[in-house]
Amino acid sequence: MYTLLKKDNKTRARRGVIRTSNGEIQAPFFMPVGTNGSVKTLTAEDLNEVGAQIMLSNTYHLFLRPGMDIIKNAGGLHKFISWDKPMLTDSGGYQVFSLAKLRKMTDEGVKFQSHIDGSFQFFSPENVVEVEQILGSDMIMPLDVCAPYPCGRHEAEQSVERTTLWAKRSKEYFDANQADDKRQFLFGIIQGSIYKDLRERSAIEIMDIGFDGYAIGGVSVGEPVKDMFDTLDWVLPLLPEDKPRYFMGIGLPDQIVKAVGMGIDMFDTCIPTRFGRHASAFTRKGKVILKNKEYASDLGPIDEVCECMVCKKYSKSYLRHLAVQKEISGLKLITYHNLYFYINMMKDIRNAIEEDRYEDFQNKFLEEYGSELRNR
Amino acid sequence: MYTLLKKDNKTRARRGVIRTSNGEIQAPFFMPVGTNGSVKTLTAEDLNEVGAQIMLSNTYHLFLRPGMDIIKNAGGLHKFISWDKPMLTDSGGYQVFSLAKLRKMTDEGVKFQSHIDGSFQFFSPENVVEVEQILGSDMIMPLDVCAPYPCGRHEAEQSVERTTLWAKRSKEYFDANQADDKRQFLFGIIQGSIYKDLRERSAIEIMDIGFDGYAIGGVSVGEPVKDMFDTLDWVLPLLPEDKPRYFMGIGLPDQIVKAVGMGIDMFDTCIPTRFGRHASAFTRKGKVILKNKEYASDLGPIDEVCECMVCKKYSKSYLRHLAVQKEISGLKLITYHNLYFYINMMKDIRNAIEEDRYEDFQNKFLEEYGSELRNR
Repeated sequence: MYTLLKKDNKTRARRGVIRTSNGEIQAPFFMPVGTNGSVKTLTAEDLNEVGAQIMLSNTYHLFLRPGMDIIKNAGGLHKFISWDKPMLTDSGGYQVFSLAKLRKMTDEGVKFQSHIDGSFQFFSPENVVEVEQILGSDMIMPLDVCAPYPCGRHEAEQSVERTTLWAKRSKEYFDANQADDKRQFLFGIIQGSIYKDLRERSAIEIMDIGFDGYAIGGVSVGEPVKDMFDTLDWVLPLLPEDKPRYFMGIGLPDQIVKAVGMGIDMFDTCIPTRFGRHASAFTRKGKVILKNKEYASDLGPIDEVCECMVCKKYSKSYLRHLAVQKEISGLKLITYHNLYFYINMMKDIRNAIEEDRYEDFQNKFLEEYGSELRNR
Repeated sequence: MYTLLKKDNKTRARRGVIRTSNGEIQAPFFMPVGTNGSVKTLTAEDLNEVGAQIMLSNTYHLFLRPGMDIIKNAGGLHKFISWDKPMLTDSGGYQVFSLAKLRKMTDEGVKFQSHIDGSFQFFSPENVVEVEQILGSDMIMPLDVCAPYPCGRHEAEQSVERTTLWAKRSKEYFDANQADDKRQFLFGIIQGSIYKDLRERSAIEIMDIGFDGYAIGGVSVGEPVKDMFDTLDWVLPLLPEDKPRYFMGIGLPDQIVKAVGMGIDMFDTCIPTRFGRHASAFTRKGKVILKNKEYASDLGPIDEVCECMVCKKYSKSYLRHLAVQKEISGLKLITYHNLYFYINMMKDIRNAIEEDRYEDFQNKFLEEYGSELRNR
């Protein structure tokens, strides 16, 4: 699945490639979040234009709406949403804990009430993998127990134990029920909250089971940025070099640049799309809050050095007008720019690794962005 | 400005072309409505893709937000919104009466309170033309008095008289203040509500002043469809053949087909975009209400015979899912289809006129659409 092409000579950044039934993905890469089978405000055409290699979607949401019958009827998620590039689906574990109403967890699985219609549903490690096999996603995340933040040691330990138990059952079900016509890849998720020994224990237990890739979960749940990166310090040295590493739900541009330098290959976050819908645009120099009055007559683009369609064509003055008027087209244009920024940043990251200049790239990026991670 | 290329041999349909500083427009044509300088949910790229020849925008809205300073600063409306094809701006007369809070009208003009921030504003025939000259639209509508429906004879008469008075002053101001660098065209608007003699009187008074084109206003304000078309019976025979005729704010697809057959050249309505945002899609066979449960597993396109990007790529099943989830991308895709449908319908209309088969085209269209206008 993953081929390591090159290691940067000064940092731990890695240049690799993932091969799936729906095409290759050059790593490190960013996955736009399409919760409901659509990246908010954008179409598949837009995603292709901004250079997206892969799209992430959400098992919890798709399971509830439109439901598996409808997606099965369409021949899987790719066909249902008309997206022919790779897809990763998360397991819904995080959403069960953050969105669902009542929930009751046992070793067997988790019973929960839909946040949409209040209906009672049940997720087990097995039926979540089954759902993702029906979805036909190229990369599958298993059901895990995402510890909240803050989280006491006992609760964190329990989440590690149950995550390992569920990971084993996910793997067994996955191995016994692979589709004939398509190779899917199953990831293991490492939990352990902010406890070093628990993170290490989780990493070892999950690696012992053996997965196609490893994800660091239970991050970006409200913890300080320091803790987020401490987790990488603890876990990454333990992971095998020949498997992709996925930092779940991360992050702001400078966090991604930093995490790549520590050895991460895969990222997802709704930040570029959510910020776009709030008319905040990303640039190398930080965020541009387009609703600010200072941009009312500014005929320049969001970012002078950006080559996206929006920056080539539209002024901050017009985009601000659209944002103030809550015009959907404006939210789309800003989202489009943000996603282009993220995806283009990943290209620059890959080029820098290929040319053994990731340290310089990272230092310059964090400096220009005004990032607090400069001194980490 | 307008060249009549061909008259259909059985109906009164006309094939023509309008030449503006920003390019030609093949007539009859449809103008997508971009109230705030943006067609709702769509970008300029989308408008080009669906084949829009021209965009309509709204003086009242743009005057209030972003305001003339900002548009002047950008070098006019085309540059502000990055649209290089022709534009028509309406005068805001209709909006002053339908949207503004307090308003007080005298022969001098109309004082009104902004529906956005309650600020007091004043529109006179002169300053509305001045605003539209700053906007730089290719076709300018003058300030008129749009009679409501229902409307008593006395009020309708007053609206005709004041519309004529204002039309004269608009023309005088327009002639005395034309831009050196760009030819704009000024339309006259015919009022008169549902009164035959008032419509005729208004048409004659407006024609006596002399304009580049003639618009039938005060329609689509709630009157029965019969009255709407009666107006055309009364007014169209009076209008000169060498000027374009614009049926303001009309209409549903079958109404457009019927009005073309009576001699109309120009149309605008927010129907395709507003219906799109409510997930209703147009086809030759009528509307498809995509939220209906019957489409939940329907893998067919909105319209089997439509060649738009949406129909080539997306199923009703997926579009329904997006609509139910209120995904912006879904509203955009349905709007995109609807606008393509309207614009493609105008192409078919033009082809039918060129080939002297408009009567057949119209009969077939109205039959297939299930239109009540078949028997008119």
